[in-house]
Amino acid sequence: MEEITELQRRMLEKYHLDALVTMTPENITYVTGTAIPTQVTVRQREVIHIVTMDHDPEVVVVNIEEPIMRTQSWMPQKSITAYNEFTESPIGLAIGILQKMGMDKKRIGIELSYLPTTDWQILCRELPEAEFVNADPIYEEMRLVKMPFEVNRILEFGGLIEDVIYGAFSSARAGMTEKDIYNMLVNGFNEIGGDKLNMPVVASGERSILLNGAPTDRVLRKGDLVRVDMMGIKNNYYCDCCRTAVVGEPDERQRNIYAQLVKCHDDAISKIRPGVNSMDVYNEFRTQFQSCGFEPIAFLGHGLGLTLHEEPYLNPYKNTALKENMVLCIEPIHCTETEGFQLENEILVTADGHRMITGTKHPYDRLAVIRAD
Amino acid sequence: MEEITELQRRMLEKYHLDALVTMTPENITYVTGTAIPTQVTVRQREVIHIVTMDHDPEVVVVNIEEPIMRTQSWMPQKSITAYNEFTESPIGLAIGILQKMGMDKKRIGIELSYLPTTDWQILCRELPEAEFVNADPIYEEMRLVKMPFEVNRILEFGGLIEDVIYGAFSSARAGMTEKDIYNMLVNGFNEIGGDKLNMPVVASGERSILLNGAPTDRVLRKGDLVRVDMMGIKNNYYCDCCRTAVVGEPDERQRNIYAQLVKCHDDAISKIRPGVNSMDVYNEFRTQFQSCGFEPIAFLGHGLGLTLHEEPYLNPYKNTALKENMVLCIEPIHCTETEGFQLENEILVTADGHRMITGTKHPYDRLAVIRAD
Repeated sequence: MEEITELQRRMLEKYHLDALVTMTPENITYVTGTAIPTQVTVRQREVIHIVTMDHDPEVVVVNIEEPIMRTQSWMPQKSITAYNEFTESPIGLAIGILQKMGMDKKRIGIELSYLPTTDWQILCRELPEAEFVNADPIYEEMRLVKMPFEVNRILEFGGLIEDVIYGAFSSARAGMTEKDIYNMLVNGFNEIGGDKLNMPVVASGERSILLNGAPTDRVLRKGDLVRVDMMGIKNNYYCDCCRTAVVGEPDERQRNIYAQLVKCHDDAISKIRPGVNSMDVYNEFRTQFQSCGFEPIAFLGHGLGLTLHEEPYLNPYKNTALKENMVLCIEPIHCTETEGFQLENEILVTADGHRMITGTKHPYDRLAVIRAD
Repeated sequence: MEEITELQRRMLEKYHLDALVTMTPENITYVTGTAIPTQVTVRQREVIHIVTMDHDPEVVVVNIEEPIMRTQSWMPQKSITAYNEFTESPIGLAIGILQKMGMDKKRIGIELSYLPTTDWQILCRELPEAEFVNADPIYEEMRLVKMPFEVNRILEFGGLIEDVIYGAFSSARAGMTEKDIYNMLVNGFNEIGGDKLNMPVVASGERSILLNGAPTDRVLRKGDLVRVDMMGIKNNYYCDCCRTAVVGEPDERQRNIYAQLVKCHDDAISKIRPGVNSMDVYNEFRTQFQSCGFEPIAFLGHGLGLTLHEEPYLNPYKNTALKENMVLCIEPIHCTETEGFQLENEILVTADGHRMITGTKHPYDRLAVIRAD
């Protein structure tokens, strides 16, 4: 897609780079328009994309996945180079392309937090006069503000995910297991056309404090908290939404804790608009959260897009001025010794404020209920 | 688990290493007994495990996942160090542990094909007198032969997966979409207690040549091939099984191609027993396959375990003498210009030959049929 190549070239200019080499699965999807599934599962199947100011972008892909790149990406046919998994080196082919483009002695941006050391050693040996610059922050910057097609995908998918969670809660009963709930979530996820449920969290009772607890055969009992966090992908973009339910009617203590969590969540969201600093939102949240007697985890929220967690984080470590078309997940969490309470919604920063992507269809201001009888 | 620490120490001795540093998701699972889900999804959440000859193993994990490591791994409580995602450096903590263990000037094995370059640069700076050795082949060697608990997990899960595929074929009809088939597969996968369906392949008609084609809304029509490849995880171990179906009765051309594929598959499997060379199995297969007028992809098969593809591969590039308790997937594939035929079964190498893990319940010697009416 030309907008993305143009954006890459603006970055080359801004950071005085001659080439940008892309290898992370998420940025390969960003720059080619398609995910290559086995790039993650079979790690040696590297995909490498190269762009300069003057040359058309090129991509190197394993021959087994070449048909996917040829039919599902927006890369022109002539810009795709395929390699054999066992006999050819993807980084070697990429180096050949960089040489052909005259980049031997130039400044090359590359994602050093992802680049395997074995590849790094080959790059240093074969291109000894090139200068390599870490491109991690460049991609962070590029992907902070979503393009209109990205916003549309996130809005459309995020708008459906709540129904899946509440559907499962309303079909669940005491006596079922966490895996039973999970099965309902999977069915619901497929019904809304999700491509991949990434990391299912169904954590009940004493397991509800495991933030990323996968479902087990634990049986739901009256009084249990059940925390469900749905993180999945459709058209390469994530959704991320969490709700907490109680089996049977919540007791007063549970209601009180949750009401405070909701208040902190709502107050934080009310501040989201262009120009606001992410760190201010976090700091004000933390003050309020601590005044409830709660201790925040390392962040209140995070960006969402091609990855589950990305900038802008809402944390005390990095400050980002919010802009229109950023997508945020706000997810306050409070764990007692035995119970984990969480509420998470997706928010779009709009021109004059924000818009809830999730949290629009079912009342989240009270704990969901799973029937105990 | 003590067997694995002992095996690691035998490798330290064999390769004259003083420490082994482990970071890949699969080997973290191997040495700790648990997977940390967000290690893959949120890549900066590194997990680092360290073992030497004389010190108890230690592990570094992000604080958000600390409860999982504390409750689901076999690591002793005192051997777990947690870090904050945004303020602490996991590689920095690992370096501190290596220094505490007196490894500053020692030979340290580490998985260089995975180690991010940013971490490599810190290691070189902070431990300038240490010698780093690539541990990739060491783990390859360790995991080639499965331990009894691993064999049991793979046997048990693999024995169920075929039913899921044939169940979906028997419920499917012309007029449904690839995604409909996928939904049935997901339901079946959950029914057999699978934890994660990794990379669903449902590729029909002209899409059947996409080896890792994800399901789409393409509608099944009479005469279409439908290729289904089930790759999923239970208890951290993979299953991998592929079948090809035809919508309606296969025509003679389809039956002929498939019969030849089956013959090559069966003849290759008949050779599997301890002492046989993987490359010989491949080469004999290739000769036979080419005499059918087919061209093999880069391999006939691969090992299966904590990863989907691992050693021993059956390919022309690397030779491994087969041993008892290796697990192999045998998957001949033939694509015409418009149709992709594939058959894949899991095989266990036994003391005196082999045992089919999949392919035992449903006749795979003819193309499966999806009803066209």
